[in-house]
Amino acid sequence: MRLTTWGVTGVPEIKPGDQLGEIIVAACQGEPNGPLRDRDVLVVTQKIVSKAEGQLVAIDPTNPLSHKKLVEEEAVRIVRRRGDLIITETKHGFVCANSGVDLSNVERGQAALLPKDSDRSARRIRDIVRAQLGIEVGVIVSDTFGRAWRKGLTDVAIGVAGIAAVVDLRGTADALGRMMQVTEVAVADELASAAELVMGKSSGIPVAVVRGVDASWFREASVRELVRPPQEDLFR
Amino acid sequence: MRLTTWGVTGVPEIKPGDQLGEIIVAACQGEPNGPLRDRDVLVVTQKIVSKAEGQLVAIDPTNPLSHKKLVEEEAVRIVRRRGDLIITETKHGFVCANSGVDLSNVERGQAALLPKDSDRSARRIRDIVRAQLGIEVGVIVSDTFGRAWRKGLTDVAIGVAGIAAVVDLRGTADALGRMMQVTEVAVADELASAAELVMGKSSGIPVAVVRGVDASWFREASVRELVRPPQEDLFR
Repeated sequence: MRLTTWGVTGVPEIKPGDQLGEIIVAACQGEPNGPLRDRDVLVVTQKIVSKAEGQLVAIDPTNPLSHKKLVEEEAVRIVRRRGDLIITETKHGFVCANSGVDLSNVERGQAALLPKDSDRSARRIRDIVRAQLGIEVGVIVSDTFGRAWRKGLTDVAIGVAGIAAVVDLRGTADALGRMMQVTEVAVADELASAAELVMGKSSGIPVAVVRGVDASWFREASVRELVRPPQEDLFR
Repeated sequence: MRLTTWGVTGVPEIKPGDQLGEIIVAACQGEPNGPLRDRDVLVVTQKIVSKAEGQLVAIDPTNPLSHKKLVEEEAVRIVRRRGDLIITETKHGFVCANSGVDLSNVERGQAALLPKDSDRSARRIRDIVRAQLGIEVGVIVSDTFGRAWRKGLTDVAIGVAGIAAVVDLRGTADALGRMMQVTEVAVADELASAAELVMGKSSGIPVAVVRGVDASWFREASVRELVRPPQEDLFR
């Protein structure tokens, strides 16, 4: 098994109302790495999804409270707070800094909110690829989250279409023929992380293609597979 | 930027005392994907590192308390406990289930402990590659950890050599020329996750190569870059 991922160059600056799926298809088809194929996975950063869907709100860039108020509005629960750092649970069930409200890579005086329903955003892109190219791809909307216990950020999935979020290998025999213990693998998060390595935070590449993904992982799915319900969670 | 990763086939069952670096070099040089090159990253699963280093202890497979006692011995702190689930902090500073003590892919009646110093394990492999092939590679020792808040496991780095664990992009301008807010990216964790996608939990492939990694990330490093000190951590 061999997996390849590359950043898609040529995606223009995205504006509210843009048809993201069509723009991505056009950029992919002009890629030096060649056109999209059946069973490619598209990883699309939250930022351009939020922009295309008009999830931008005005804030006062001179007043930090303006950002903070927005963070609290977008939260259903404050999980931790220390100094300027606020870890919240969003209405989607994600636990992340600042409710995912982001000031980078948007115009000064604006903040980008998370998409309302990133699974739906991913499905729209998948459907446009299907309609325009006649192929089946998986789509992951990714965002950059911190973690408990470990330093550094990683990209994770906040929406999926056509590709499993979690693959359950429980009950599969391991290489010594023993039943495995714990093996629900968060493949959509791992794919988002792999894609982040070629997009880079500062290079402004908002879309990546991953090719060579296990064929059995392509199915109807939802990011809810990745959201641990609060009552099962030991850390909120 | 284009990144490719594949699982290295032909790594034999590893036994205590095996010279892991030499075995990996031999397996890579016989790979259908071609020999190792300068600036490849080798991702090596904890399990074979622990086996080669003899980090195996006997347990009574008929007595769950035997495993539990070992988990507690390997912990410096019990972070959470619910039913059979124990989240601990290990002496290395990792927070994970069962202190990383693992029963899968080892013989019945044995448990694999984490390597004593996975940075050192990674350096040994890196040094053998350098000595035998005259090339510089990065080496990551990976393990499979759960996360707070999100379901599913991902592979993360527990040791590194010759490759950054965290890349600090703070102060880099974003695509709109604004200074970025938060951009310490856990690249070693993302590389471990990318590699997991081609190793698979049940296929018994314990080594992957990642090619095409950003040249600026190759440097002396330690997994301590990834360990959040308890006093900075809001979740233990």
